[in-house]
Amino acid sequence: MTGQNGTLILAVDIGGTKMMTAVLSAEGQLLVKDVCPTLADEGVLSVIERLFMSIDGLLNQNNTEVSQLGGIGIACAGGIDSGRGIVVTPSPNLPDWHDVPLAKIVRDRYRVDTFLVNDASAAALGEYQFGVGRGASNLVLITLGTGIGGGIIANGELYLGACGSAAEIGHMTVDAKGPKCGCGNTGCLEVLASGPAITRDAIGRIGQGEKSSLVELVGGEVDSITTETIGTAARNGDPLALDVLTRAASYLGVGLVNVVNIFNPEMIVLGGGMVELGDLIIEPARKMMAERAFAISAQAVRIVTAQLGNEAGVYGAAVFALEKNIRRPE
Amino acid sequence: MTGQNGTLILAVDIGGTKMMTAVLSAEGQLLVKDVCPTLADEGVLSVIERLFMSIDGLLNQNNTEVSQLGGIGIACAGGIDSGRGIVVTPSPNLPDWHDVPLAKIVRDRYRVDTFLVNDASAAALGEYQFGVGRGASNLVLITLGTGIGGGIIANGELYLGACGSAAEIGHMTVDAKGPKCGCGNTGCLEVLASGPAITRDAIGRIGQGEKSSLVELVGGEVDSITTETIGTAARNGDPLALDVLTRAASYLGVGLVNVVNIFNPEMIVLGGGMVELGDLIIEPARKMMAERAFAISAQAVRIVTAQLGNEAGVYGAAVFALEKNIRRPE
Repeated sequence: MTGQNGTLILAVDIGGTKMMTAVLSAEGQLLVKDVCPTLADEGVLSVIERLFMSIDGLLNQNNTEVSQLGGIGIACAGGIDSGRGIVVTPSPNLPDWHDVPLAKIVRDRYRVDTFLVNDASAAALGEYQFGVGRGASNLVLITLGTGIGGGIIANGELYLGACGSAAEIGHMTVDAKGPKCGCGNTGCLEVLASGPAITRDAIGRIGQGEKSSLVELVGGEVDSITTETIGTAARNGDPLALDVLTRAASYLGVGLVNVVNIFNPEMIVLGGGMVELGDLIIEPARKMMAERAFAISAQAVRIVTAQLGNEAGVYGAAVFALEKNIRRPE
Repeated sequence: MTGQNGTLILAVDIGGTKMMTAVLSAEGQLLVKDVCPTLADEGVLSVIERLFMSIDGLLNQNNTEVSQLGGIGIACAGGIDSGRGIVVTPSPNLPDWHDVPLAKIVRDRYRVDTFLVNDASAAALGEYQFGVGRGASNLVLITLGTGIGGGIIANGELYLGACGSAAEIGHMTVDAKGPKCGCGNTGCLEVLASGPAITRDAIGRIGQGEKSSLVELVGGEVDSITTETIGTAARNGDPLALDVLTRAASYLGVGLVNVVNIFNPEMIVLGGGMVELGDLIIEPARKMMAERAFAISAQAVRIVTAQLGNEAGVYGAAVFALEKNIRRPE
């Protein structure tokens, strides 16, 4: 991370369930952080109020004046227009974030240059600069959870595309005849292999009368089945749980084939809650990739697990703000 | 194109049916060129012999000494390992090009630094520097013909990935339950929407007894049906021809959605013979992209036709060689 010594960066990562605020040094040291619930269902303004409280508390705690901040970086889920600093389309967990000019709102409050980036792109940048991706100039990060997001490092730089909404790996069609996705497209990777896709599949099949030890595992509360319970049932040999995960893994495998054939990356970094299902999902998907992708590219790629955990977003947001502020023409 | 004044670049583009050799100035002016048939079925060595004859004749004709050459750039179809200068896997039209160390072979003969790049990547670089893509820092070129190839400009630079085999846009799975592709993968865009996919579909359906004016159009020689004849029949209202093209267009549309969601490019440049089927294939595919891709990205992209025609490859190969020679660490 380059920048003037002594400059501090405020970094924010707004996810569907939690948001993290942090102060980092220009050298990339995380000095202090705060985590609080997003409570997205209370509405956008309420989330932003809570964000301001978290930031104010954090600056106080670290004895940091706003004047010491060299920039604010915000990572946020959803369809982001980085150039204009707007959350344009909502993500599954921030459902009413339509056209929210988040960078301007934060800039107006603190009077510090503020930059907005998609959370998965931020995580890719964080892992590239400070995590498992150090040295991998061509890297694709895929977050596997409620949604499936992506971040791209190309030729050693974050790739955001024309407006900052690139890397929607979860919204590439992998099955042209597949189900409708919430994004308006058809057969997206996300609607076939995300956490909700997996639980929906299991709950649906149980609803249609298929037997599974899952029912007992959740005490009859079928709607409370999660990817974790499905993982547990699968490890205990439950055929339905195994089948549901095999299906999702095959779509994830197709997704990996596509990423490898399109990007020929040195590294694919997998993050998000579903990484816990490693042997049940990641391993078969990796095997499919090795069998189907172009040999040159399949042999060149390492598929690894993210290293910075839930701090990847704030690390990446900080790097993003620093680089943007340095590169600005003015 | 940057480089020393006076330096000349020899550029080569080896396609399945023709190869082009050209001498360009470091400023990107094409000074002289030669086109000859590839005759790929005579074998790799024979093609390379013919390439040497074409190069020798061209240098002679232009009174160019080998010592005046600042580099040789070769664009070639197939799975290319740019770092090692090897054609690793063959393309449909160069079927026996397995592990051909093409850069070394040419370098050994002329004793000039030689650089190898995939032909579609070269075309993307050519269009970006000298064609329709000037100024579009985030650009994806897609060639639609016997194969479906791709080239990527990311953040204003050619993106080749870890070994130079990135941008295999034609080999992303768009239909996980689709047919096997020659590359070993399943449901690739190429096996569903390339020229051969379209003619195979039409010929197969006629073989199964479906009626079509195509049979008359080719004088009963059903195996001689081409995308051009299918285009003609479709424009005359033939239902089978229209249906076959609609199907291919829907897959191409899915491909465009994926490219737009993954790259958020300013521009998609379409090249290759199938561009002639514009209103029948490109237009419906573009419409599907506009309806299904993320709105931010769909609104940001312009879909245009390549401008440099069959010279895009030599322009791009020349730029590639110049940039490689300038950037080399030694």
